[in-house]
Amino acid sequence: MMDKVSLGNKGPVCVTPVWVIGTYDQAGKPNASTAAWVGMCCSVPPAVAVSFRKATYAYENILQKKAFTVSIPTEDYINEADYFGIASGRNTDKFAATGLTPVRSELVDAPYVQEFPFILECRLLQHIEIGLHTQFIGEILDVKVDPAALSDGREPVIEKIRPFFFAPGSRSYYAAGQQLGKAFSVGKTIG
Amino acid sequence: MMDKVSLGNKGPVCVTPVWVIGTYDQAGKPNASTAAWVGMCCSVPPAVAVSFRKATYAYENILQKKAFTVSIPTEDYINEADYFGIASGRNTDKFAATGLTPVRSELVDAPYVQEFPFILECRLLQHIEIGLHTQFIGEILDVKVDPAALSDGREPVIEKIRPFFFAPGSRSYYAAGQQLGKAFSVGKTIG
Repeated sequence: MMDKVSLGNKGPVCVTPVWVIGTYDQAGKPNASTAAWVGMCCSVPPAVAVSFRKATYAYENILQKKAFTVSIPTEDYINEADYFGIASGRNTDKFAATGLTPVRSELVDAPYVQEFPFILECRLLQHIEIGLHTQFIGEILDVKVDPAALSDGREPVIEKIRPFFFAPGSRSYYAAGQQLGKAFSVGKTIG
Repeated sequence: MMDKVSLGNKGPVCVTPVWVIGTYDQAGKPNASTAAWVGMCCSVPPAVAVSFRKATYAYENILQKKAFTVSIPTEDYINEADYFGIASGRNTDKFAATGLTPVRSELVDAPYVQEFPFILECRLLQHIEIGLHTQFIGEILDVKVDPAALSDGREPVIEKIRPFFFAPGSRSYYAAGQQLGKAFSVGKTIG
């Protein structure tokens, strides 16, 4: 096996989920911002982490409202999700521009995207200054999923949600592929 | 469009990357732990966040050594990656059990998995108590990639790395699918 090639400390992760973060501004205007520096960070309480630069409108909104939502888009909305990451809510009504529908969460002071199939409603637990980005940790108060994206057992079905991913290296999006195997199971052949 | 179905606050995210976290214990034994509560969290400095329960061996090791690596497995190593998430380094030598090769990082006091194509070497910046999980934020000091997984322009190529994902709902793994479009580009048709 050849030695690995060092790419230096510029390079970020291989591939990361694409999440659309919903917030209200001070005037109550709904905003949607695409983020890829995101992840689950705790099981109890269930919590997610999303990072934003201080310059973004989402940063201000989350700190003011102590709340945000995560709306996970399907492949069908790749253009809208990309737009949510390009435009700024400071000078644009991004919901109006895309024609997508903001829905006021009943649990937190933030809107989610009606057309996207998988929603997390989060209240801000803490925020952590790291550097260019600030990380916001939000407790998941509810998960809401389109009925058409659920199995008979009411589990979210990846093949129906069709989430997609961001590859920072090539600055491109990738689909979710086929199911490969069961977790906490296929590894039992070892050891 | 039908109303969304509330799944309550039990449910975590839709789909999340699978990372193998490399650490040394106090005796210098290399350990590998699979984590899915992970993500990129800052661009400058480049940093990742990985969460572990206090009960895990990785938790102790990271706090002691102030360092960890991220080794991203290809599909070919799904069994080994799953095993790294099932077994505990407290009572097992997981590298020996899988036959995979620990490589000592020259930059941080942690090992990575030689056979996996995409590596991040991280020094611990801070750790955050959230609840059941503690989040470790690590600065990426270097990204190392197998030469066979790079393009001519030395960018990581997803189709060659073939990373995979964990879907918590169905407790299963999913492949990366096809490239869908260019980020910061396809959304320019809007607005």
